[in-house]
Amino acid sequence: MTAENETASAVLAANARFYRAFNERDSAAMGELWATRSPVACLHPGESLLVGRQLVLRRWHQILVSRPAFTLRCDRPIVQVFGPTAIVYCYEGGNDELAHLAVTNVFVHEADGWHMVHHHAGPMAHPLPDLPAKNLN
Amino acid sequence: MTAENETASAVLAANARFYRAFNERDSAAMGELWATRSPVACLHPGESLLVGRQLVLRRWHQILVSRPAFTLRCDRPIVQVFGPTAIVYCYEGGNDELAHLAVTNVFVHEADGWHMVHHHAGPMAHPLPDLPAKNLN
Repeated sequence: MTAENETASAVLAANARFYRAFNERDSAAMGELWATRSPVACLHPGESLLVGRQLVLRRWHQILVSRPAFTLRCDRPIVQVFGPTAIVYCYEGGNDELAHLAVTNVFVHEADGWHMVHHHAGPMAHPLPDLPAKNLN
Repeated sequence: MTAENETASAVLAANARFYRAFNERDSAAMGELWATRSPVACLHPGESLLVGRQLVLRRWHQILVSRPAFTLRCDRPIVQVFGPTAIVYCYEGGNDELAHLAVTNVFVHEADGWHMVHHHAGPMAHPLPDLPAKNLN
């Protein structure tokens, strides 16, 4: 595996930890995922900007403890790496519904690995026309 | 001015070039703003992801030549710097309307300065409650 592929894999693993923390309603894991030494910010669908670790994690905790039961998918993830920073682009959809959010997830590499510094999920005008391949059978 | 403030100013200047290119419908300036050596991607409001300089700039050209006449504002910009990468968060609104888009603009520092690698504008559920101060008088 090339160094480039290794980096992309590590970033995608951090991105997967984000969706696992969400789906398991795990506030502690969400807290570990977000960066502690870099500035952070978050834009939930339709909401205004949250800046700083305290506000971002407080809002995540609210969401995780109150949200209805469903599995959030990260469809079609693409990684772009900029040295110690990386972005994952993907689409989010719940359960077996078509994806309806376009997402920017930004990560930075800190001493112990990749951590999230920004999540932006924005509503799409129309859901993606197809479900991920694994759900088509 | 500290080095940190100088960096933030330079990033905000690149961000201002983005809105100037948009408002002046200047495809050439838009092309100069976007990075040439780093990967790029763009998420227009409600649309699906565009990846790569050719697709991103083609779509910008379509928008710039066809859009109605209005001035797009960048309200309440905030800069976060991650070494050679930086993010500007802001809200966009047209003319004197309340801002209705939440925005993530990502820049990287290339040989000749800061360039855009990602723009994500997502619809807000409710416009921001206030216009920028300069418009209140």
